[in-house]
Amino acid sequence: MTDVRALAERAKAAAADTALLSRAEKDAALLAMASALEAATEEIVRANDADLARGAALSEALRDRLRLTPSRVSAMADGLRALAALPDPVGEVVRGSTLPNGLELRQVRVPLGVVGIIYEARPNVTVDAAGICLKSGNAVLLRGSSSAASSNACLVSVLRRAAVAAGLPEDAVQLVAATEGREDVKELMRLRGLVDVLIPRGGADLIRSVVEESTVPVIETGVGNCHVYVDSAADLDAALRIALNAKTSRPSVCNAAETLLVHAAVAESFLPGALAALADAGVTVHGDAAVAAYGDVVPVTEDDWYAEYLSLDLAVGVVDSLDDAVRHIRRYGSGHTEAIVTTSQAAARRFVATVDSAAVMVNASTRFTDGGEFGYGAEIGISTQKLHARGPMGLPELTSTKYVVVGDGHIR
Amino acid sequence: MTDVRALAERAKAAAADTALLSRAEKDAALLAMASALEAATEEIVRANDADLARGAALSEALRDRLRLTPSRVSAMADGLRALAALPDPVGEVVRGSTLPNGLELRQVRVPLGVVGIIYEARPNVTVDAAGICLKSGNAVLLRGSSSAASSNACLVSVLRRAAVAAGLPEDAVQLVAATEGREDVKELMRLRGLVDVLIPRGGADLIRSVVEESTVPVIETGVGNCHVYVDSAADLDAALRIALNAKTSRPSVCNAAETLLVHAAVAESFLPGALAALADAGVTVHGDAAVAAYGDVVPVTEDDWYAEYLSLDLAVGVVDSLDDAVRHIRRYGSGHTEAIVTTSQAAARRFVATVDSAAVMVNASTRFTDGGEFGYGAEIGISTQKLHARGPMGLPELTSTKYVVVGDGHIR
Repeated sequence: MTDVRALAERAKAAAADTALLSRAEKDAALLAMASALEAATEEIVRANDADLARGAALSEALRDRLRLTPSRVSAMADGLRALAALPDPVGEVVRGSTLPNGLELRQVRVPLGVVGIIYEARPNVTVDAAGICLKSGNAVLLRGSSSAASSNACLVSVLRRAAVAAGLPEDAVQLVAATEGREDVKELMRLRGLVDVLIPRGGADLIRSVVEESTVPVIETGVGNCHVYVDSAADLDAALRIALNAKTSRPSVCNAAETLLVHAAVAESFLPGALAALADAGVTVHGDAAVAAYGDVVPVTEDDWYAEYLSLDLAVGVVDSLDDAVRHIRRYGSGHTEAIVTTSQAAARRFVATVDSAAVMVNASTRFTDGGEFGYGAEIGISTQKLHARGPMGLPELTSTKYVVVGDGHIR
Repeated sequence: MTDVRALAERAKAAAADTALLSRAEKDAALLAMASALEAATEEIVRANDADLARGAALSEALRDRLRLTPSRVSAMADGLRALAALPDPVGEVVRGSTLPNGLELRQVRVPLGVVGIIYEARPNVTVDAAGICLKSGNAVLLRGSSSAASSNACLVSVLRRAAVAAGLPEDAVQLVAATEGREDVKELMRLRGLVDVLIPRGGADLIRSVVEESTVPVIETGVGNCHVYVDSAADLDAALRIALNAKTSRPSVCNAAETLLVHAAVAESFLPGALAALADAGVTVHGDAAVAAYGDVVPVTEDDWYAEYLSLDLAVGVVDSLDDAVRHIRRYGSGHTEAIVTTSQAAARRFVATVDSAAVMVNASTRFTDGGEFGYGAEIGISTQKLHARGPMGLPELTSTKYVVVGDGHIR
């Protein structure tokens, strides 16, 4: 079995050095890693072939997530180059002042230290996460899934060689090999004091088990039961456009809509056309009794309201008021993203104030909750918790702060 | 046994309303609560007498922490008035921009929701914490110690009456009565989804058990094994002044120094005078062999280096270099506050960069790590963890953020 503690101790030692790297040193390493990936394309694809061969029994969707092609390798390299172009969060002065007694106070961004990422199939996360953690001055422990073991081992070996050649500590990037029964994850979760934060990325089960069992602080990501609410004062054309986009543009991602709530006052004018359009788009509607009056639907169940389908299914309900929509969202939602479609300023204001989610959209698709769309350039995930980071997490979210106080012999 | 879950459910319902309060409403309630406390001084002191009578066997130090006098009641009321004068963190726009596609993006401060504070003897925390949580728009569950049960019950009853009269939700402030074997704390720690954060304030044992067992996110506070390092280039008069102040001005608090490290190059010129001055101030020095050469000391043990004495004891050691001092601090420190005394800009810069603590002081006493000293006006504790908040936590640290995105029918 992997000695996870030994890996973490090496990561902690490396983190003390990565924290001191200048932006120039980090960017040079990221560019070198990008070139090294492209140069090793053949080796990487071959390693990936081994994973695909072992995963012959997987569904085509899973195999597609797992697959690396030369163009996907190039895309990963370009991701590292984009990171190099982003500003360095480390050293940013968040607050500062001179206190009445003359002490100079600064609150400065510093790296978190050792970041553990626990993720499922996609091997591109290996490269993205390594790059984001390095750019923010952290050492990273990458715990990918066993289904991508060969790809991940190859990618990490290429990245480490390039990083070391560029002068970075060898253990700034390390792979934690997946072992039977997630024993290695259990060990990671006990390394409080060595690992500064764990970020699970994957299915709801993985995230729940990490959140509940870890003594290392966790940032919860990604479960998205997102809602679109069509207000009584909605522009119904915009409402249909947004509902269709939120559900169908990419159903497998966390910012896709899973529930559509329609104000009773517009149900008759909105639902017949909306149900037809959703059906045309291949969406299976799970509707309540009021919705069923306007078209063929699968009867909705209590479980449907809670569901993150990640498929072309959509729960649809009629509500009597905006406040009822908000109550529904508070009860069943996952706190990711909710959208209101309305022309009423008062309705928009109340929805924004009373919905308790990471992102609230007014007349825009839920699909916009994304680090790239927000202009953050890089994203390690979307936090659905309230502490530390909420919503898309970019580079600053992978930092902490330190107070620096300078005096000339000051005592209290 | 207290039904902690029921209290938390009521708190969550109240939190939805406190989140929407305007600054004017919150400040009016805080001022009304302050007046109510002063008007109830006699009642409060009587309730406190009952705690003191039950606690006849406690040490005089503990009894003093527990004691409420009319002037201490006034001081608590003044604390609430000071909170009313502080800016409201809720609604602050942390970041904002118009995206290339015309979407308007704002990241806005919002309350955390339900905050649970678990604390020991001092009943003034009841009033401070209630005020800070209300001002930041949160509902609060106050879990004080059983030794202050009568005082806390009386204080909370007075605060609730005044808050309700001022139009606040009744359950914005609730007391969780301490039960045998901390069963109520165990229940609190399981209420993930109802309670948004737990902040334990008290001894290292309490904090460790909450950190390890809670599924509710925790902010770790207050264990301070703070170091003063006297560099080879130090102004030795300033070094002695700072060491004495850091150790003796208030030994029982978390920002007091517990270890003094002296560079070997100045040991001979600094230590004889320093040891004499520390002895004069009543400090027991636990010194290593190099220190023992300059005066009478208790031999230091491995445990001493880890100790948060909170008393007039001080571990003192000689180190060969600044980097050795930093290694010592990284190994034994608690990540609270460390100070360097030096006239060398290079030494200050390296110490600040390589010490991994919430606060780093240059030529200033460790005692300055404090919300009041930093100008934050109010403090709920000092975080020694890296996620969410690090260092003194004021009002902004009791908030989260929400992204608000406004479009006119935008789809992706």
